[in-house]
Amino acid sequence: MRCRPATANAGHPDGAILQPMLTRTECEALDAADPLASSREAFVLPAGRLYLDGNSLGPMPLAARERVQAVLEQEWSQSLIAGWNVHGWMSLPERLGASLAPLVGAAPAEVMVADTTTVNLFKLVAGWMSSPAVQASGRRKVVTELGNFPTDLYVLQGIEQLLGPRVELVAVPREQVLQAVDADTALLVLTHVHYKTAEMYDLAGVTAAAHAAGAAVLWDLSHSVGAVPLALGAARADLAVGCTYKYLNGGPGAPAFVYVREDLQAQLPAVIAGWLGHAAPFAFDDAYVPAAGVGRFRAGTPAILSMTALDGALEVFAGVDLQQVRAKSQAMADLFIALVEERCAAFGLQLITPRNAAARGSHVSFTHPEGYAVMQALIARDVVGDFRAPDAMRFGFTPLHTRFVDVWAAVEHLHAVLANEEWRRPEFQARQAVT
Amino acid sequence: MRCRPATANAGHPDGAILQPMLTRTECEALDAADPLASSREAFVLPAGRLYLDGNSLGPMPLAARERVQAVLEQEWSQSLIAGWNVHGWMSLPERLGASLAPLVGAAPAEVMVADTTTVNLFKLVAGWMSSPAVQASGRRKVVTELGNFPTDLYVLQGIEQLLGPRVELVAVPREQVLQAVDADTALLVLTHVHYKTAEMYDLAGVTAAAHAAGAAVLWDLSHSVGAVPLALGAARADLAVGCTYKYLNGGPGAPAFVYVREDLQAQLPAVIAGWLGHAAPFAFDDAYVPAAGVGRFRAGTPAILSMTALDGALEVFAGVDLQQVRAKSQAMADLFIALVEERCAAFGLQLITPRNAAARGSHVSFTHPEGYAVMQALIARDVVGDFRAPDAMRFGFTPLHTRFVDVWAAVEHLHAVLANEEWRRPEFQARQAVT
Repeated sequence: MRCRPATANAGHPDGAILQPMLTRTECEALDAADPLASSREAFVLPAGRLYLDGNSLGPMPLAARERVQAVLEQEWSQSLIAGWNVHGWMSLPERLGASLAPLVGAAPAEVMVADTTTVNLFKLVAGWMSSPAVQASGRRKVVTELGNFPTDLYVLQGIEQLLGPRVELVAVPREQVLQAVDADTALLVLTHVHYKTAEMYDLAGVTAAAHAAGAAVLWDLSHSVGAVPLALGAARADLAVGCTYKYLNGGPGAPAFVYVREDLQAQLPAVIAGWLGHAAPFAFDDAYVPAAGVGRFRAGTPAILSMTALDGALEVFAGVDLQQVRAKSQAMADLFIALVEERCAAFGLQLITPRNAAARGSHVSFTHPEGYAVMQALIARDVVGDFRAPDAMRFGFTPLHTRFVDVWAAVEHLHAVLANEEWRRPEFQARQAVT
Repeated sequence: MRCRPATANAGHPDGAILQPMLTRTECEALDAADPLASSREAFVLPAGRLYLDGNSLGPMPLAARERVQAVLEQEWSQSLIAGWNVHGWMSLPERLGASLAPLVGAAPAEVMVADTTTVNLFKLVAGWMSSPAVQASGRRKVVTELGNFPTDLYVLQGIEQLLGPRVELVAVPREQVLQAVDADTALLVLTHVHYKTAEMYDLAGVTAAAHAAGAAVLWDLSHSVGAVPLALGAARADLAVGCTYKYLNGGPGAPAFVYVREDLQAQLPAVIAGWLGHAAPFAFDDAYVPAAGVGRFRAGTPAILSMTALDGALEVFAGVDLQQVRAKSQAMADLFIALVEERCAAFGLQLITPRNAAARGSHVSFTHPEGYAVMQALIARDVVGDFRAPDAMRFGFTPLHTRFVDVWAAVEHLHAVLANEEWRRPEFQARQAVT
């Protein structure tokens, strides 16, 4: 097909990298010229699937499978307990942190992989709010955004309940966040890219504004890392967490990471004081002495099978230029928005993601009153995005394994689902949990 | 060889199941008559290795490998995001808890698998101490044992520091634990089987004594579960945690479990309030509402690769009679103690594990001034136990994969290491981390 000019996109504010309204053939030509095209070979991708949900669970990298198989075939089974030393299991949290550091713009000693995003949020926020510096400051407020990813909100609510009068949680609409940071604010907790709308904060600008008010910032990078170049160090960001099973392709429930700016590490207590966060775990002393650096935020024994999958997955990023990733992500999402608005204009879709590519992450969400059923009908056609209550359909653009021609084809399927009203079928109406 | 009578063991107080001092041939006969002998085939065991460290890291069950390979080959790679539903990843924490429940003598809805022992200790202790019931009681003390496993001590120290005047940690020598539980004590935290000495508490008796003083009990079952039959429900134990990478063979850093007695679940806040502990996680509401039951103690996204390894590992226990496991464990340890004291009497070994089989778990520790080097020399002979500072050598007896003849042969190697002073070699003196 040949699309008509996309009037909706004509006034694109930051200059679209692509002209919208490409043909399939033109998309194939873009793929042929894509400097990231060969990275697709690093993944196992089911034949025929148009997978636009790498923003929720990345596909399996071959290297992740290889590393896990090595743990099964050689490391656990053959080395048994000696694996902790001879295969370096014990140092995996730090080594993975060092591998991840360039992806968030941090120094290797500022990042460590451990536990889940939820547990890491708890560690850093509870630690910050009970740190001597914050206690001395008398600041009690933790500011966050209403509609933030639920685990961020829930962890903060749990901490407020646990720490009683020492913490007051202030959750405000997105547009009021910065004005809510005041002289009583100790910490601003934000998700860099919004899980539903893909709206992206100006990380450096918001950090600077919070610092100007005397508050620290914790960034949840779950929906950014691996898709958006990040510069925590340059922004002097204080704290960060994030997951690794989305754009980093670490596998279902892959371990999360913490970032603590180097000069803050010594003053931040490890509130979950575990044996592997001790300065000398194998001395088996009765008294807790935290490890000197970011190692104190390791708590219990690392989950080696899940950690090694991530170890393999991060190999895919070695040598990848994140600016190229970002440019391709923006181009694919621009194309998707333009094609959807052109092809599907009659069917009540509403874009809730910024049209300005610089102001969004790497996914695009449209709402539709029957969004759940529409997504189920798409999935039945082997076009996989996901759904977020009450009405948002999300489509993720993951430059390492998604092609322009996939974007083009996905929109054709979406058009067919809507034009044929395939979503009306009863089997697409019954809801089940999705993640 | 033919061993001489073991005078040291003659007065064995609880009636040894075996006569000590068996020959290799007699051990082989015991193995031939062992009702658990066939369970050895469920594991991958390196040829020629005498592995007496299943109390630290269990060997790989074939079913664990199969399950993980299925996640790689079919589930993650082919189902991608749909795996959360179609392969039941989302319900794994509860399903694993239900599989584990009979091993701890609990109801299925009282156990859940999540996170690490360290994180789970934090959840339950911080939750208990901030629960409305404890707050109303005015009780502030948490009593534990000096020399408890470090992570138990460290987590409690971290909570005392975090919760300030609401928690006072009292750590006393083992023999003073019960008298330290007083009218100001809210919680007694004990490890059922001591990681170093294998001393085992009377779980029901200690629980009853604590209850009589108005205190609850949290049991760390890391060194018990899978080796010692447990009856948390019959004892009306309040809380428990434990790891699954020792006798349960879940793999390096396998996820841990929590047990909360059913009638306590509703009153215990989930202090790490994560999205998957919410009553309706996929409603994505801003306000945290805890799940009704033990599910609230799930926090973040479960680590599926590590969880499925445990899923396979627990299959090995299906149909296993834990009383048979216990009887064989006691018999092997009796044999080991008797043979060591007979064959190695001249070399300065000191038994620090109870001679009374009913008073110990499933490992046996001897101290030796050169314990570290002796263990290294044993490992060089492919006889694997482990070492705990400053001077304890541990040997674990794991009835599902260890044979009587292995015990016999291990003692012959120990004798050779000591008699030949092999431990003096420089390569056995240089220390590295072990777990």
